Amino acid sequence: MIHQYTLKTDKQGFYNITGIIERAVAESGIDEGICTVFCPHTTAGITINENADPSVKSDLALALDKAFPNQSEFTHMEGNSAAHVKAAAIGQSASIIIGNHRLMLGTWQGVYFCEFDGPRERNFIVRIG
Amino acid sequence: MIHQYTLKTDKQGFYNITGIIERAVAESGIDEGICTVFCPHTTAGITINENADPSVKSDLALALDKAFPNQSEFTHMEGNSAAHVKAAAIGQSASIIIGNHRLMLGTWQGVYFCEFDGPRERNFIVRIG
Amino acid sequence: MIHQYTLKTDKQGFYNITGIIERAVAESGIDEGICTVFCPHTTAGITINENADPSVKSDLALALDKAFPNQSEFTHMEGNSAAHVKAAAIGQSASIIIGNHRLMLGTWQGVYFCEFDGPRERNFIVRIG
Repeated sequence: MIHQYTLKTDKQGFYNITGIIERAVAESGIDEGICTVFCPHTTAGITINENADPSVKSDLALALDKAFPNQSEFTHMEGNSAAHVKAAAIGQSASIIIGNHRLMLGTWQGVYFCEFDGPRERNFIVRIG
Repeated sequence: MIHQYTLKTDKQGFYNITGIIERAVAESGIDEGICTVFCPHTTAGITINENADPSVKSDLALALDKAFPNQSEFTHMEGNSAAHVKAAAIGQSASIIIGNHRLMLGTWQGVYFCEFDGPRERNFIVRIG
Repeated sequence: MIHQYTLKTDKQGFYNITGIIERAVAESGIDEGICTVFCPHTTAGITINENADPSVKSDLALALDKAFPNQSEFTHMEGNSAAHVKAAAIGQSASIIIGNHRLMLGTWQGVYFCEFDGPRERNFIVRIG
């Protein structure tokens, strides 16, 4: 079962997509399996992190900016190489275990689409199986 | 087949859980498939790295501290945002191929639960399928 | 269905293995599923990033060198701890959704074997299911 979703990002940041994925799992009727969430972009990613205090999202963005700043030696003409390396460090997918018809996320975990460039029209793909 | 395990971390660091996972795979009787190891926490993660020289673990911790230090601009009140970003960079899961009834890990690879905060009572989930 | 491949890396960098994986998926005849690409090494990894401008690859290498430099405090005798931490940040596997008999990669995405040490004879494993 494969679902494709569109997301309009209005700026760089972390977009909570947990509800969308939970709904897809519930509608699938699947009892046990794996939910794969995939980002088909090279300057965006998928991560799982805190769903409670929104300041974690801004701290994550700040920490990634500090670890992977723009470098004067970068040669990629589009000028978004920092976004490419953040995407590589965060990763393009999440594999979440499904048990008892639901995502086995921890209490404080949410799934986020990470926009490191944009604003852009983006997509993500969810496979349940 | 889903297994849940508890782990008591006594400090930050990398806890080798390879043996636990190998046992679950052996007991499952599965010949070929995927073993998904998932961490349901937001300041901890799962990584695969060297199982031989223990100094690699302390070097990993040092390198992550340098790349993702505490920042005075962090606003998350709990004060553990560096742990959140380390968890995001390392990732919450590992997907390991099972072939011939065993994990197809490389000779020098072990699977580690990464405690970036704690000490804490932690969990991890293993799904074989 | 499990395939093992050998790769001779002549220096550190990103080696495009997309074509090899696409061929394995096509030959499998599978319509829908997951393609897991796994790196059984501790100083190498698997990433998905831009397949068009080759300068992205050198910018990624530069950014990872800056974020995870060699540290005088490292104690691992082999002297390649920076490679170990890059491997941990990038990750050892990619999980790519298969739909309509093909990898559902984005237009600009390619799959790369990342050599952070070497030159070396390396392996990677592809599981389709």
